[in-house]
Amino acid sequence: MGIKDVVPNEVGIEMYGLISRLYPICRSITGDGLRETLNIIREYIPLEMHEVPSGTKVFDWTVPKEWNIRDAYISHSNGERIVDFQKSNLHVVNYSSPIKKRISLAELKEHLFTLPDQPEWIPYRTSYYKESWGFCLSHNQFLELKDEEYEVCIDASLKEGHLTYGEYYLQGTTEDEFLISCHVCHPSLCNDNLSGIALATYLAKHLTALSLRYSYRFLFIPGTIGSITWLSLNEDRVSRVKHGLVVAGVGDSGKFTYKKSRRGDAEIDRAAIQILKESGDDYEIIDFFPYGYDERQYCSPGFNLPVGCLMRTPQSRYPEYHTSADNLDFVKPEFLEDSFSKYLAVVNIIEENRRYVNQNPKCEPQLGKRKLYERIGGQREMAVDQLALLWVLNMSDGAHSLLDIATLAQLPFGKLQSAAHLLREKMLLREI
Amino acid sequence: MGIKDVVPNEVGIEMYGLISRLYPICRSITGDGLRETLNIIREYIPLEMHEVPSGTKVFDWTVPKEWNIRDAYISHSNGERIVDFQKSNLHVVNYSSPIKKRISLAELKEHLFTLPDQPEWIPYRTSYYKESWGFCLSHNQFLELKDEEYEVCIDASLKEGHLTYGEYYLQGTTEDEFLISCHVCHPSLCNDNLSGIALATYLAKHLTALSLRYSYRFLFIPGTIGSITWLSLNEDRVSRVKHGLVVAGVGDSGKFTYKKSRRGDAEIDRAAIQILKESGDDYEIIDFFPYGYDERQYCSPGFNLPVGCLMRTPQSRYPEYHTSADNLDFVKPEFLEDSFSKYLAVVNIIEENRRYVNQNPKCEPQLGKRKLYERIGGQREMAVDQLALLWVLNMSDGAHSLLDIATLAQLPFGKLQSAAHLLREKMLLREI
Amino acid sequence: MGIKDVVPNEVGIEMYGLISRLYPICRSITGDGLRETLNIIREYIPLEMHEVPSGTKVFDWTVPKEWNIRDAYISHSNGERIVDFQKSNLHVVNYSSPIKKRISLAELKEHLFTLPDQPEWIPYRTSYYKESWGFCLSHNQFLELKDEEYEVCIDASLKEGHLTYGEYYLQGTTEDEFLISCHVCHPSLCNDNLSGIALATYLAKHLTALSLRYSYRFLFIPGTIGSITWLSLNEDRVSRVKHGLVVAGVGDSGKFTYKKSRRGDAEIDRAAIQILKESGDDYEIIDFFPYGYDERQYCSPGFNLPVGCLMRTPQSRYPEYHTSADNLDFVKPEFLEDSFSKYLAVVNIIEENRRYVNQNPKCEPQLGKRKLYERIGGQREMAVDQLALLWVLNMSDGAHSLLDIATLAQLPFGKLQSAAHLLREKMLLREI
Repeated sequence: MGIKDVVPNEVGIEMYGLISRLYPICRSITGDGLRETLNIIREYIPLEMHEVPSGTKVFDWTVPKEWNIRDAYISHSNGERIVDFQKSNLHVVNYSSPIKKRISLAELKEHLFTLPDQPEWIPYRTSYYKESWGFCLSHNQFLELKDEEYEVCIDASLKEGHLTYGEYYLQGTTEDEFLISCHVCHPSLCNDNLSGIALATYLAKHLTALSLRYSYRFLFIPGTIGSITWLSLNEDRVSRVKHGLVVAGVGDSGKFTYKKSRRGDAEIDRAAIQILKESGDDYEIIDFFPYGYDERQYCSPGFNLPVGCLMRTPQSRYPEYHTSADNLDFVKPEFLEDSFSKYLAVVNIIEENRRYVNQNPKCEPQLGKRKLYERIGGQREMAVDQLALLWVLNMSDGAHSLLDIATLAQLPFGKLQSAAHLLREKMLLREI
Repeated sequence: MGIKDVVPNEVGIEMYGLISRLYPICRSITGDGLRETLNIIREYIPLEMHEVPSGTKVFDWTVPKEWNIRDAYISHSNGERIVDFQKSNLHVVNYSSPIKKRISLAELKEHLFTLPDQPEWIPYRTSYYKESWGFCLSHNQFLELKDEEYEVCIDASLKEGHLTYGEYYLQGTTEDEFLISCHVCHPSLCNDNLSGIALATYLAKHLTALSLRYSYRFLFIPGTIGSITWLSLNEDRVSRVKHGLVVAGVGDSGKFTYKKSRRGDAEIDRAAIQILKESGDDYEIIDFFPYGYDERQYCSPGFNLPVGCLMRTPQSRYPEYHTSADNLDFVKPEFLEDSFSKYLAVVNIIEENRRYVNQNPKCEPQLGKRKLYERIGGQREMAVDQLALLWVLNMSDGAHSLLDIATLAQLPFGKLQSAAHLLREKMLLREI
Repeated sequence: MGIKDVVPNEVGIEMYGLISRLYPICRSITGDGLRETLNIIREYIPLEMHEVPSGTKVFDWTVPKEWNIRDAYISHSNGERIVDFQKSNLHVVNYSSPIKKRISLAELKEHLFTLPDQPEWIPYRTSYYKESWGFCLSHNQFLELKDEEYEVCIDASLKEGHLTYGEYYLQGTTEDEFLISCHVCHPSLCNDNLSGIALATYLAKHLTALSLRYSYRFLFIPGTIGSITWLSLNEDRVSRVKHGLVVAGVGDSGKFTYKKSRRGDAEIDRAAIQILKESGDDYEIIDFFPYGYDERQYCSPGFNLPVGCLMRTPQSRYPEYHTSADNLDFVKPEFLEDSFSKYLAVVNIIEENRRYVNQNPKCEPQLGKRKLYERIGGQREMAVDQLALLWVLNMSDGAHSLLDIATLAQLPFGKLQSAAHLLREKMLLREI
């Protein structure tokens, strides 16, 4: 086990604490909720803030107006609020245009969204790229609406402003980058994606203390438009990204899922799969598909970056997804901690996955005289650590990386990593 | 779905009608039965007739003599016919030499063929390349033969003449060819291969009305010697064949079987497999083997053409095969129509399987502003058509054809075809 | 079936006879037991003897001292022997340093080895590369030892001398070599590896009488240090080895196991797998791993020779392995004979696996006129031998070997071999 594998004490509880702080804030793809969120993250890691003006062209897209909301409600004519943004920011369709007027039930219904199958839950809906307004409410509340006149108010503004995102760059010994990207645009939803924000924050904090081969870039960006904006502003530097993960949905109780990069056999794909195999836990590997989170942009054919998505239950496969039930009860410190440890283990493989050349390639070197071998021969079984030494020696022909060898040997990566360190000390391996 | 996918009304019934007309004729690898058959097909499509003289050298083979038969029987000494060619042309071993003589039962038996396991059925036997004669009869009839003298008569001729075959060439916008080949040499046997003749005829008729990228060549040839003759006469043009199918056994009730070309991964192989996968019906894929129909010649190593065989139950896997039970009851309009529609669907894929380049390859294009995207975001599932748009965009990097994308996306080819048409209209794709 | 496939009568019984002669001898990696063993083998085949001086540098290793033992025992103070080398040479840890002294039970126990799980059996232990001494005994006997003083005596010598190995080279029509290697260092253990010694001896004897394409090199060497020594002394000639097998554990009742060479897809790998497939017996294929017998050295990355290991039950997978229970009851003539026949069949494939070019590649040649084809057509099934003719013709394009064709056709190699001989006679094939 490398030093990078040691998970800090109580990191799950600390991640949960950050999620709890961020939960009440009404975020969107632009605006003050997003800024407030990034400012809180800056208390943990020295995030660089970027403000990109509305109207900026980013490939086929345009940075949209900044949306800010102060209040919103549907009330009876007597002023009694029956749907209230102050109680849950999910009640307003995110990015709704401002409105204030009296309205009949019939007309109001055209702007209401509910979940008939989950009548207690409020759905989460957005309307980013078409000016529009609406409210979300539980289906039970919807059924109680009487045929009368209502007042609707969305005290919001949609104006020229900025798209805000945060970036943290951790310099390693090479310019090659490992990208960690999470979306920060969702309002009060915990698993999607306060869990990803918390994991990226704590992983960044943890790695800051280590000596690393790769440089690590952490992006806290609004979904879709954020990654498009970052790619557009950094087009000439993107080729430095040698590995990447999109972090989302890492706090629920479900098994782990790894969605491969578009390349399908990138080193990050093999490292993530190796970690899930070694974990002993149930898991699922899915091929890339052009829908999901920001890997859609990183893996567009013009970039085709080696970026996968390591998550627990994938989006849309759990009923709480994009509803008010994705709340502080839905994510748990223990799952967050487990996710953290798997991310760290992937980082460890990527850092330690080297190619070596056996310096004594003709026949085995005599391990005994180097005190690397058991003394009494003839016994039935060989210790796994000795087997790891033999595997590393046999396959270190310059063509096989340690991860390749782990796959061939069906041994844990850490065993081979230790064997390689030992053999390097004994001058039996040379890194290439 | 492309226009090429629309199956004409009642095509199965019409195909069955053609089979019924052709059923009584006694065909062989040469002779008037073959000519009569081709002349009937000419009522449907403008078939070009070829007459190749006996003795013509065609690679390692020689075009054989022309065989014509008028009558044949085995009769008691009182003249009563007990086996009569007029009742079934299967009674005579096809290509038998003429004979007329009195004969003992013992000697006669050396020239009789029966099916002890199917005692009611008459087998179909041939003796093309060794001069010989014989009769086929039901085993029950055989058991009743008494030890007496018989008269045998085969009123046939084997003389210098011609090998006849029919060819229909349908010019497309390119010189690249799609070859459709069926054998026309079997006498009164419906599935093998009047069904194939009917399918090729109606497919030719149907495609004639369409605007096509490929040129289509339909061959109506006697088995083995016919394809060898055609290949020999057209050796210099054979490289134009980019795709091909041998049509046989397409009228029975069995599941579909696709036998791959010798190449194994030709576009025709992938197209046929895609169609069978999409059909939702049970099916079987088998690798190429050097036995079967005329694919043996097309796929000989000196040609190695991308020609597969798309059929229902393969030859020799149904008891009726090459017996009198392969009759007008054995094939059905509904199976013929189903076969027609699958052939047409394969043609559609071959016609529509293009490679495109995404004109906006860096990040996704904004589909919303082009009215290609749903407006209210955050919902759980994505419509399959929208997913098809994303797949075509993501994978159109010049390396993937639509069929490649269909395989990756596990979506019906037609969905991707429609998506590609839409994206091309919006200038987001360019064909290469 | 080629002549090489004919297994001599009673070869299993003869192999068992050789094993019985060699069983009592106390072998080690050096010394007179090894010499005596090789001298007995010289009665069967003209083995060349090599003597390599102690201290010779062989890659990272040094040829060790020569060990010879005359007697050894543990006795009560009254002189009564309770553990006696004369009863079983396994009682002494192989390569033990000489010792003679009185000793307490407590001290003695540090030098004793037993098998608590198999309390009646004596384990086999070695101490080659660390000077040390010890005794092996049954666990039941161990439990009876009382707390008294014992006399231990190992009347052995460890002196400058030689490492001895035997080599038999059988010249074929080419310089390309097939290497057969077996270890000869184990004392009274039958399956590991008197069985391998017997098989190599009788295979060498059998092949001597045949006319062969490859040259065959048989090595009778002490494990590990023997193969390292041979590789070191023959480094410049090693590239002639085109195929190789390590022979060990071929006399037990278990199913066959083939351990692939490090290359994984060498011709020897494919030949061995083909034979096991064809055998109709249960078998197992395992990938290369860098532990086991001398394939560890042949397959070290600096050599990477195409050498696999064809055995019955792999080492350490049977409880008798490296114990006194691996005795003359554990191996049987019938299993030895079965192993011999499988080795011979592998040799046959390697000898006969040629590449041909069809001399009539355009369409099938007319087999009938060459009397290679059935005369009455139309029958349901084709004889397998005729199918073999068609497969060889169709796939003989210069790219496919007979073994490739056997794999594609799923036919026994022998059928294709016969077909190829027949087609070569008819001038339809040319070897390349």
